[in-house]
Amino acid sequence: MQTTNSSAEEEIFRVRKLEISDKNRGFIELLQQLTVCDSVSHERFQERFQELAKYGDDHLVCVIEDDKSGKIVATGSVFIEKKFIRNCGKVGHIEDVVVDSSVRGKQLGKKIIGFLTDHAQLTGCYKVILDCSIDNRQFYEKCGFKQKEVQMVKYFI
Amino acid sequence: MQTTNSSAEEEIFRVRKLEISDKNRGFIELLQQLTVCDSVSHERFQERFQELAKYGDDHLVCVIEDDKSGKIVATGSVFIEKKFIRNCGKVGHIEDVVVDSSVRGKQLGKKIIGFLTDHAQLTGCYKVILDCSIDNRQFYEKCGFKQKEVQMVKYFI
Repeated sequence: MQTTNSSAEEEIFRVRKLEISDKNRGFIELLQQLTVCDSVSHERFQERFQELAKYGDDHLVCVIEDDKSGKIVATGSVFIEKKFIRNCGKVGHIEDVVVDSSVRGKQLGKKIIGFLTDHAQLTGCYKVILDCSIDNRQFYEKCGFKQKEVQMVKYFI
Repeated sequence: MQTTNSSAEEEIFRVRKLEISDKNRGFIELLQQLTVCDSVSHERFQERFQELAKYGDDHLVCVIEDDKSGKIVATGSVFIEKKFIRNCGKVGHIEDVVVDSSVRGKQLGKKIIGFLTDHAQLTGCYKVILDCSIDNRQFYEKCGFKQKEVQMVKYFI
């Protein structure tokens, strides 16, 4: 009878909340794969982390840590907007989703989106939204999203 | 020499922050022109108003009151998202912009967008974004916005 070592090889990629020590696990370097993201001082990181912590469940940043390397390999965030419309309803806004280029194809993006979507639903949102490039539309469709509107932007710098 | 009474007729449409008493000036009825918005009890309105007030400058709802009728005829909101990217930058998200159908054509939408955009810039945002239908794209282009991405949505109800 043949045995496989798939279970031994199988990596467990658990999604968890961002911790303050994740700065030392390559969290900022991961975000640099997404967009312009200069290196951040420890004080500045700590300050922003605490600012977001004040929002409690209304602003969640999640990560996946690679158990083998100890590096953060995926992240995403969701914040909960409180409205007057829809009977004083709430909307989840997903932002800044990125998966490390070295671990693509392992469905980590789907795990992140699932985690953030579940959080929005559990906090009572009637919908969750995000903006993405045309290229990424298909990925989000596989996550159960549908295209609705267009995003408009005005830069100040 | 002919005189006109244009200055006497001219209405001054000032943008100001939402006040708790605006519920009695048709604020919810105005939102009903935008989307599904059931009537809200005074207690529920007050509760949501106070929840948003806690965010201070990070969540602003503005309105225009028609001095003649005492009714709220335009509104919009912006909330400030705090990020780790862009050197711990901030982004303004504009939501729920609506102008009463009886006062369209008086540039009130532009006034609302200008007020919200200025607020985002003054609070240190590097950009301001919003989602709109294809039909409204031209209006936002006139306000200095450019189309960038597509909006994806997942409804829970």
